[in-house]
Amino acid sequence: MEVTSRYVTIKHHITGSPKQSDFEVKTANLFLSLDTGSNDVLVKNLYVSIDPYQLNRMKEYSASQMASEYALAVLPGQAINAYGVGRVIASANPSYIKDDMIVGLIGWEDYTLVRGKDVIMIRKLDSTEFPLSYHVSALGLSGLTAYGGFFNVCKPKKGETLFVSAASGSVGNIVGQYAKLFGCYVVGCAGTKQKVDLLTDKLGFDAAFNYKKTTDLNSTLKRYFPDGIDMYFDNVGGEMLEAAVANMSMFGRVAVCGVISEYTDAKRRAGPNMTEVVYKRITIQGFLASDYMNDFGDFLSTTSDHIQNGRLHVIEDISHNLESIPLAFEGLFAGDNIGKKIVQIADN
Amino acid sequence: MEVTSRYVTIKHHITGSPKQSDFEVKTANLFLSLDTGSNDVLVKNLYVSIDPYQLNRMKEYSASQMASEYALAVLPGQAINAYGVGRVIASANPSYIKDDMIVGLIGWEDYTLVRGKDVIMIRKLDSTEFPLSYHVSALGLSGLTAYGGFFNVCKPKKGETLFVSAASGSVGNIVGQYAKLFGCYVVGCAGTKQKVDLLTDKLGFDAAFNYKKTTDLNSTLKRYFPDGIDMYFDNVGGEMLEAAVANMSMFGRVAVCGVISEYTDAKRRAGPNMTEVVYKRITIQGFLASDYMNDFGDFLSTTSDHIQNGRLHVIEDISHNLESIPLAFEGLFAGDNIGKKIVQIADN
Repeated sequence: MEVTSRYVTIKHHITGSPKQSDFEVKTANLFLSLDTGSNDVLVKNLYVSIDPYQLNRMKEYSASQMASEYALAVLPGQAINAYGVGRVIASANPSYIKDDMIVGLIGWEDYTLVRGKDVIMIRKLDSTEFPLSYHVSALGLSGLTAYGGFFNVCKPKKGETLFVSAASGSVGNIVGQYAKLFGCYVVGCAGTKQKVDLLTDKLGFDAAFNYKKTTDLNSTLKRYFPDGIDMYFDNVGGEMLEAAVANMSMFGRVAVCGVISEYTDAKRRAGPNMTEVVYKRITIQGFLASDYMNDFGDFLSTTSDHIQNGRLHVIEDISHNLESIPLAFEGLFAGDNIGKKIVQIADN
Repeated sequence: MEVTSRYVTIKHHITGSPKQSDFEVKTANLFLSLDTGSNDVLVKNLYVSIDPYQLNRMKEYSASQMASEYALAVLPGQAINAYGVGRVIASANPSYIKDDMIVGLIGWEDYTLVRGKDVIMIRKLDSTEFPLSYHVSALGLSGLTAYGGFFNVCKPKKGETLFVSAASGSVGNIVGQYAKLFGCYVVGCAGTKQKVDLLTDKLGFDAAFNYKKTTDLNSTLKRYFPDGIDMYFDNVGGEMLEAAVANMSMFGRVAVCGVISEYTDAKRRAGPNMTEVVYKRITIQGFLASDYMNDFGDFLSTTSDHIQNGRLHVIEDISHNLESIPLAFEGLFAGDNIGKKIVQIADN
């Protein structure tokens, strides 16, 4: 079995914000080993995730860095793997048959040949009660990041206050919705009026503000949180983290799952006031969705139930065609997307 | 009962590093209410603690700050309370009699009148098997800070690696000793050859270095921790925190109990790379000794036992006379002290 597959790659390592012109579309031939012992699965990709962290993989790193935390660095010309949903078109693996729908690590490409050793990175979608794209957004890693970060890292108590940055983004909007359902006071910030309105009018946030219209973050946060921020879900780092720490209450928790301000500018690094971290006994904790894979079952059933009963809105921003991936990725860093950014590569 | 008591106070709020000339010695008359219902206790102070955090109380704060985290701000002309050991010379409290030895919140003064409502801030010293000063250092809040920070915040596992800054200081030297006794690999840094030698030769640290002779903190730490730092006990913040985070292993923990670099210079704030905090799932947690008061009994028996059996060395730096307090305090920020800085005000 062989298919010709287009894939998106970087022309060169990227410094600063990514531009469409940093990418190109190439073509590869993928061969499925017909031997059952290979356990390979050939997947036609339908929806793929567009995430800011991918930029970190596209930078130039020293060999020692690549060998450690940035093990999945992308080289120019290589295909770029990404989370997504696809349909099995051929299988040499006894667990999968043609037309099975799967979710997991596929790529920014028409087809992904999932090698036998990598089959653990995908799983079968048993149910099709929701639109397939939901498995990339609220029921996928974005949802799990929100779930693990809010429940396990923030460790909320009913009635506590939560501030979430990039609140209309893929993870932030879900964190805010979980927090409201849990019984917290929730304020988010975002970068346009349309996003801010979405947060308060549709998603039920107690308040939201446009950080681009804010001259003094510190006093803005003080106004929204006169008694302090108990939990800050941080997607951006930098000055927002600094201002949030300055406004935290005693024993406040900061969950950090992304640092967009550092991704595009390594030098821009406003630091939190550590004296406040000490006096207020603040905990700042970095985490990744993968830390909470053991909770995936709980996460999926809880979140599915919320969606089914109309308590949780799934906010997606879907573009179409493989060729639109570079623009979609560039747009992430310009704040173009509302909700989870996804590209639909094929209809079925 | 009345005594005339000299006390150290600030002439004005302090900005930057403190100087002797920022202080003056004044005199007050203290009157013990003879009514037993008052529960007052009059204490003659013998040993008092000299701590960097006191500087934060001497700065000028806005009203809202004073009302919250800096509730114990010191005003010019006021007496300055401090941890220490003293002898009861008169008591209107049924729990104390003349000549009881006490430890707790007294002050930088000859005598402290402990009001009935504040008597919970002192406790009787039942045992005199150790020098009295030990109850200000290894058996006092410095020891408790080390104990709570190492065991509860760092959450060590045998065989893990620990880096401790200000390692010859009041808290750092004890953290390093606990960690060696627990079975960790321990490296400390300090600011003179004499301090570095103390760490390796007397206290059993695996290694130590003089940070003032280090041109590149990052690569120095990489040399001492080729496989990464599992735990960093941070007393200084700033660039040391930044370099430690850059060298941490996955799921590393940073315990922050002091930020000397920020105390004397609010603007100097190198921040950790938050992208590394995320990818390496680092936890940075601020804490104070008072958070672990419930562990005081365990701490005291464990630590007394270590000292009694010669497994833990008590490192103290004692000056004499009340008048030497301003110089002792100034010296803290110049790195003059080795071990716990204490001033002995009276012999008995």
